[in-house]
Amino acid sequence: MSKREKIFSLPIRVYFQDTDAGGVVYHASYVNFMERARTEWLRTYGYSNAGLMKEFGVVFVVRSLKLDYLKPALLDDLLEVTAQVKDAGRSRISIIQTVRRGQEVLTEAEVHLVCVSLESFKPVSVPEVLSKQWKK
Amino acid sequence: MSKREKIFSLPIRVYFQDTDAGGVVYHASYVNFMERARTEWLRTYGYSNAGLMKEFGVVFVVRSLKLDYLKPALLDDLLEVTAQVKDAGRSRISIIQTVRRGQEVLTEAEVHLVCVSLESFKPVSVPEVLSKQWKK
Amino acid sequence: MSKREKIFSLPIRVYFQDTDAGGVVYHASYVNFMERARTEWLRTYGYSNAGLMKEFGVVFVVRSLKLDYLKPALLDDLLEVTAQVKDAGRSRISIIQTVRRGQEVLTEAEVHLVCVSLESFKPVSVPEVLSKQWKK
Amino acid sequence: MSKREKIFSLPIRVYFQDTDAGGVVYHASYVNFMERARTEWLRTYGYSNAGLMKEFGVVFVVRSLKLDYLKPALLDDLLEVTAQVKDAGRSRISIIQTVRRGQEVLTEAEVHLVCVSLESFKPVSVPEVLSKQWKK
Repeated sequence: MSKREKIFSLPIRVYFQDTDAGGVVYHASYVNFMERARTEWLRTYGYSNAGLMKEFGVVFVVRSLKLDYLKPALLDDLLEVTAQVKDAGRSRISIIQTVRRGQEVLTEAEVHLVCVSLESFKPVSVPEVLSKQWKK
Repeated sequence: MSKREKIFSLPIRVYFQDTDAGGVVYHASYVNFMERARTEWLRTYGYSNAGLMKEFGVVFVVRSLKLDYLKPALLDDLLEVTAQVKDAGRSRISIIQTVRRGQEVLTEAEVHLVCVSLESFKPVSVPEVLSKQWKK
Repeated sequence: MSKREKIFSLPIRVYFQDTDAGGVVYHASYVNFMERARTEWLRTYGYSNAGLMKEFGVVFVVRSLKLDYLKPALLDDLLEVTAQVKDAGRSRISIIQTVRRGQEVLTEAEVHLVCVSLESFKPVSVPEVLSKQWKK
Repeated sequence: MSKREKIFSLPIRVYFQDTDAGGVVYHASYVNFMERARTEWLRTYGYSNAGLMKEFGVVFVVRSLKLDYLKPALLDDLLEVTAQVKDAGRSRISIIQTVRRGQEVLTEAEVHLVCVSLESFKPVSVPEVLSKQWKK
């Protein structure tokens, strides 16, 4: 992704279901928020998860995940969750994600995905319609 | 809510996090979808949950819940989740909700909420700013 | 289920993930607790969900759900979640469930399940190994 | 934790609620499994989360999280989720966690927790009753 390209961002509202008895957003909820943002980011390249499964018989699975929690999000906050390509290989892609509230960065993450066959769950090449867009 | 009033509806996309190994949306996920729709519906009356807690020291809790699952929702579906007042009392309100995919009704629900004090968790009157809008 | 038969009960601890910013267990978390208890109850009849799918090509799906929330459960509570057959038909079963904390009943529920084919998602007969145990 | 000390492990069964339409356990579900194991591990030192909040006015929050997903867990699997101290400071602790199925390691994680004041959400010293057990 070139520097001039706009970073993809999905607005996400915080509901009770996302919070815990500590009064803030539960730490695993951010992992859910990030999946939502990655899915909508993927859609900007013309593909849904269901579409990838039907058309190519593949699915992206999370191989590793690293999150830094800087500040807590609160009930009713309107967050922005970003996603952008860090680098991409034959069957894998690394994505940088953040959760922001206005100008504040609340959470930073790096997610490594692997493209696997739906049948064998083994790594396969990323469909070219996607990889050619990611490797620029 | 008068018959001429438009029924509130929130668009909700289905992600992997909402599905299960049966290949469809997990039954408890609809309960989450409905909380999101009720919260945004409440916001159309000028109040957030956090706002109600701060300004009035009250919160709406679910007293009972009835769901009928008619057809399954699938990964990547774009659903519409509705909310409308069925009837309202001094400290309670009944809400009818549906989950739709286009013209198909996938799930129907009736939710009874009680307005309780944040401190005692005992029923208290719904703040008048809300009750006067619900009882017309 | 005869009156003399012991009611199935699964102990479930409440963690942060089950609670919300209201300081109590989130209402959809009870739906999850009940699925856990029904699954372990099914296991007492000799079958897992995965086993039913592999051996018979069927899965039980929730057709309707009714919950009454009487008292809130709290962080770190040790709950007991029960499941017992109310009645059973050719392709369906009704189950009564409760969530208890000691002698207190916190939540009562009735869940209607339908046995469907994994391929068509249409109702099929409950495998006889189960139905003969439920209809006594 | 000395090498001779037994590593804490919590058995966790996989239910539909933990899986996704890919047919395996959803990646954020492991984060939930790990919170359950850490909570029960904390309990072996004599403290619940609710107890820490009431007695000391503190709560442990996740500061960072790193997960490696090696192999997928499946519906009905009986997993073992471990937790052991890596190192501990004045107001923080690092914990190594794994998710296993028999001898297979499915997921490895490192979790950094910070002890914060419930009121200010700012770091405070870990209560001595815990820190003296962790620093041996």
